[in-house]
Amino acid sequence: MEEHTGKKNYEVDWNEYLPGVAIDCVIFGYHEKVLKTLILEYKETDFFALPGGFVLKDENLDEAASRVLFERTRLQEISLNQFYTFGSLSRFNPEPMRIVMQKNGLEPTKSHFLLQRFMSTGYYALVDFKEAEPIADFLSDSCQWYDIHDLPSLLWDHEQIIQKALESLRENIDHRAVGLNLLDDEFTMRELRNLYETILGKELNRSGFHRKMVNSGRLNRIGKKNTGKAHRSPYLYRFNT
Amino acid sequence: MEEHTGKKNYEVDWNEYLPGVAIDCVIFGYHEKVLKTLILEYKETDFFALPGGFVLKDENLDEAASRVLFERTRLQEISLNQFYTFGSLSRFNPEPMRIVMQKNGLEPTKSHFLLQRFMSTGYYALVDFKEAEPIADFLSDSCQWYDIHDLPSLLWDHEQIIQKALESLRENIDHRAVGLNLLDDEFTMRELRNLYETILGKELNRSGFHRKMVNSGRLNRIGKKNTGKAHRSPYLYRFNT
Repeated sequence: MEEHTGKKNYEVDWNEYLPGVAIDCVIFGYHEKVLKTLILEYKETDFFALPGGFVLKDENLDEAASRVLFERTRLQEISLNQFYTFGSLSRFNPEPMRIVMQKNGLEPTKSHFLLQRFMSTGYYALVDFKEAEPIADFLSDSCQWYDIHDLPSLLWDHEQIIQKALESLRENIDHRAVGLNLLDDEFTMRELRNLYETILGKELNRSGFHRKMVNSGRLNRIGKKNTGKAHRSPYLYRFNT
Repeated sequence: MEEHTGKKNYEVDWNEYLPGVAIDCVIFGYHEKVLKTLILEYKETDFFALPGGFVLKDENLDEAASRVLFERTRLQEISLNQFYTFGSLSRFNPEPMRIVMQKNGLEPTKSHFLLQRFMSTGYYALVDFKEAEPIADFLSDSCQWYDIHDLPSLLWDHEQIIQKALESLRENIDHRAVGLNLLDDEFTMRELRNLYETILGKELNRSGFHRKMVNSGRLNRIGKKNTGKAHRSPYLYRFNT
């Protein structure tokens, strides 16, 4: 929040935010067969959680998600996909946040904004690994990439939120944005298949995948990759516009 | 609400509900090539809207949706599908609700619970047309089935909510619950195709549809329908378990 408002934490005016409504962002980055997501570590604790935030009273829910993404990555104009709103009573456990507040010199008064029951709307984004600059928020020591198969234990229902985001990403894997955001502009069929296999968490038949992709009409073949050995060089592809 | 609490409207204690969080239910019913949805008409107005409600402080979000469905239809143990949370600023227009409150003898004080900005989480349900008994809520004159192609003009973003529910239903049309809830236990291939065509809003190739359904492995063929003319009678099917 301090990035957005330019204020230090003790100057945050919680009255500017809607009560009870939160955002959690699952920010996926892909690189060489590894799918990662950004995770915050709260200051001086062993508490890990998804980057998240709240909704300003004069802000759309979608805008709040974009703002949170910007605050944590400095990335803008990234498509965000709303995938689910988490609203079970069991996610309401203010104890860890009380500890986080104490570590940060905030008094955990009973009715403090941060200690309410929140509904949290989950958004996922796909970003280029190399372009994101993860930035910790004012309650956190770090904001770092973690392999989705090697996550630290997360607070609240955040592991469930990541699983749900991953299910949604899998359902939408053929959408244009998945490839566009997670691959270079030009890629080989093997690189595309690696991406699919990593997201889906399973191996795919090489020739079946090739055929499906060529038949989908989504790709343009643009020549061979320059490897010095023309006869063994793979073709390069682009997503067509 | 009065069904749930056993209270008259003037006894509703709005403090029991979470602020700023609402539910809207798109309750789909199907009958003979017509897809319908339940719509409320507010008392003594020409205002139409989706059945909806709020979330009790001691209730899960999903439970609130089930309660709203029960209150409006008396149906229980119906699967509800959360499809989207609507949170734009543009949906915040308290003027129609002020008029509704006045028609119902409620004073539209500036900070009244009903006049807040709400995030609304949309759920859709598929119900058997014949088993639902639509019941108006305490602010409404009627709760009735409307053909989704012949809806009255709806308040706020409720037309958009129905469109989004319909998109989600279309994406999930192959899920078991769609057929189970919207067809009789035994049905002909034509009846199944009619359902698909009505939901998808387009005609489907008869033999292609037949092949796809048989190949899906989801159906059991259980004999011919008794029409008195065995050679012309269509086969009956069931969804397998």
